[in-house]
Amino acid sequence: MSQDDGAAEAEATVRVPMNIALVKYWGKRDDLLILPLNDSISLTVDRLTAETTIRMVPGVGKHTVEINGKSVELSSNKRYQTVFDEALRLQRKRKEAEASSADSNGNDPPPIFYHFHVTSTTNFPVAAGLASSAAGFAAIALAIQRILRLDDSQANRLARIGSGSACRSMYGGLVHWRKGEMDDGSDCLAVRTEAAANWEDLYCIILVFDDGRKKVGSSEGMRRSRETSQLLKHRIESIVPQRIQQIQEAYTSRNFEQLARVIMADSNQFHAVCMDSTPPIRYLNEASWQLIDTVEEFNIGGIRAAYTFDAGPNACVIVQKENASQFLKAVLQTIQVPSEDLQVIGKELAEQFDVPAEPTTKCSKLIMSPMGGGPQE
Amino acid sequence: MSQDDGAAEAEATVRVPMNIALVKYWGKRDDLLILPLNDSISLTVDRLTAETTIRMVPGVGKHTVEINGKSVELSSNKRYQTVFDEALRLQRKRKEAEASSADSNGNDPPPIFYHFHVTSTTNFPVAAGLASSAAGFAAIALAIQRILRLDDSQANRLARIGSGSACRSMYGGLVHWRKGEMDDGSDCLAVRTEAAANWEDLYCIILVFDDGRKKVGSSEGMRRSRETSQLLKHRIESIVPQRIQQIQEAYTSRNFEQLARVIMADSNQFHAVCMDSTPPIRYLNEASWQLIDTVEEFNIGGIRAAYTFDAGPNACVIVQKENASQFLKAVLQTIQVPSEDLQVIGKELAEQFDVPAEPTTKCSKLIMSPMGGGPQE
Repeated sequence: MSQDDGAAEAEATVRVPMNIALVKYWGKRDDLLILPLNDSISLTVDRLTAETTIRMVPGVGKHTVEINGKSVELSSNKRYQTVFDEALRLQRKRKEAEASSADSNGNDPPPIFYHFHVTSTTNFPVAAGLASSAAGFAAIALAIQRILRLDDSQANRLARIGSGSACRSMYGGLVHWRKGEMDDGSDCLAVRTEAAANWEDLYCIILVFDDGRKKVGSSEGMRRSRETSQLLKHRIESIVPQRIQQIQEAYTSRNFEQLARVIMADSNQFHAVCMDSTPPIRYLNEASWQLIDTVEEFNIGGIRAAYTFDAGPNACVIVQKENASQFLKAVLQTIQVPSEDLQVIGKELAEQFDVPAEPTTKCSKLIMSPMGGGPQE
Repeated sequence: MSQDDGAAEAEATVRVPMNIALVKYWGKRDDLLILPLNDSISLTVDRLTAETTIRMVPGVGKHTVEINGKSVELSSNKRYQTVFDEALRLQRKRKEAEASSADSNGNDPPPIFYHFHVTSTTNFPVAAGLASSAAGFAAIALAIQRILRLDDSQANRLARIGSGSACRSMYGGLVHWRKGEMDDGSDCLAVRTEAAANWEDLYCIILVFDDGRKKVGSSEGMRRSRETSQLLKHRIESIVPQRIQQIQEAYTSRNFEQLARVIMADSNQFHAVCMDSTPPIRYLNEASWQLIDTVEEFNIGGIRAAYTFDAGPNACVIVQKENASQFLKAVLQTIQVPSEDLQVIGKELAEQFDVPAEPTTKCSKLIMSPMGGGPQE
């Protein structure tokens, strides 16, 4: 990693995990600045990362973005342009401030043009619906932060205007994305919950149930819920603030049962709000419901697992490490898991899993990961 | 039909349609008296009826209930006993009042014992999840009303303590079940919306999607939502009252589009509350969602159909008569309908339906019916 020294080329590389919300973000108060209607709170998934290198090159030229070896068409992905524009605006602002203090003759410094080259690699399939863009934009924001020596709130803003919840991937531990009140988004920030060190014991098991269904994208879904759901407003005003606090308390006191109850209730409520929209939005499929049943049954006699679903059918189940292998055994009774995934997981847990006679529900990928690790350089 | 003349045997026969809620009843404020947490509003489905004959026989003896030729085990169906007990209590009360005005010597009239024999026939399969018990208990209540010369509020109470929403099947036209405020349920009554004559033009098309899934019964579901859903209270207090009024306005002014919007939004919100419960409750299946998609597509360019779902996967679609055959054609593109049902419907509409090449979604029964007709003697 090099630093910004005037008009020289600069480069930075960062690896950033995706994150999963424990209290869901659903609804924007500003579509352009991507300011949310409610606070959300999340943990990163350590093993699902985007590794991103950014070169910032002086001179007029075309920005380029390459993800997993494929060139991204920037004219149909405006968010990259938005982030680059904002980065260059922040840089100009700083240079102007530096120039006016160093050089009091009142002349503006000559405008300097730059373009960015982004190369990003994710270690999971981008198309699997696993919020890869959150990790990707967080990595872009962090790399630009290094190059341009931005402060944390500026980097946060860069990530957020790229992909909303990307700002939650910029820290380890429990991350709280505050919606803020200001129209310019200056108090809309993701922050690490300082009260608690990372809870190393938390693992997640992700089951990919992607199907061929045409899906309502999350931007369209959020717009629809904001405009038509009579329950969304109540959720935002009267339920979410309390749940954020409950998650923080449960996480800080290492109370898994309380944590799990809130996680599941909030996932269900998010999908309830989708159902309450016009036309109704459905993200869960038969396989998702099979997984819910599996977790409910696993939790009889004591809550040891919590499911959560984003805007799609894929499940993320959070467990304490000691219960991971028991939970996997329960999953295998009802859901068919690719054998290569089982081999990996089996080695990690030093366990052999007896695979029963072909359950009808299938997942296309199962990933196990510790949670709460932050970005890495 | 004969009348109550002291200790003689009496008999009455009534035919009563089932009803479908346009604003849903979900949640009880009193489990024993079946007092609801919110108002609901409904229309009857003229062609799906229960025809019930009651004989009231003097003397000590066993009550008997026979539905579609099969004897009902009353020890595991306490609701019949509850209704019979209440009927006899009401009769004693009246006799006491008559006696005390006629006979002022202060002696109580001798207690008279009775038992009931109920024979009921439904013209649709009881197991299809089509709220047959509502029609059945409404018929029992109306027949007992005739025999014992009860007033309407007493008959309403009899139907309600038998099967909650049964009280909405006792009238034609738009029926409003008021939750009431009193602990004894005395102001909890279903009443006909007097402002509007029956809207003869409304038809419903019912699609039975019954599957083998184990279902959460509505009593258990209501209890679960009341105890765990954070959205239910808001729905009850802030949303339902407004929707009842909107339905009344739309129905009275024959505004199909407004009626349809509220019907669909309220069905969706009811299922959203189910999703918001712990554990979450799911009544809709893949076929139900296929039907939702079919209606959404049919409504592009103008709302001409409204779906509504009770506590199960079966759909009820409300249309104006002039649109019934167009809607059926749309259904046949995506849902396989038994050919015998199509023949019946085709004759009624004097239409031939081209059945396309086997859609994968199937319904086991399709019924078309006018709405809003009342009970018949």
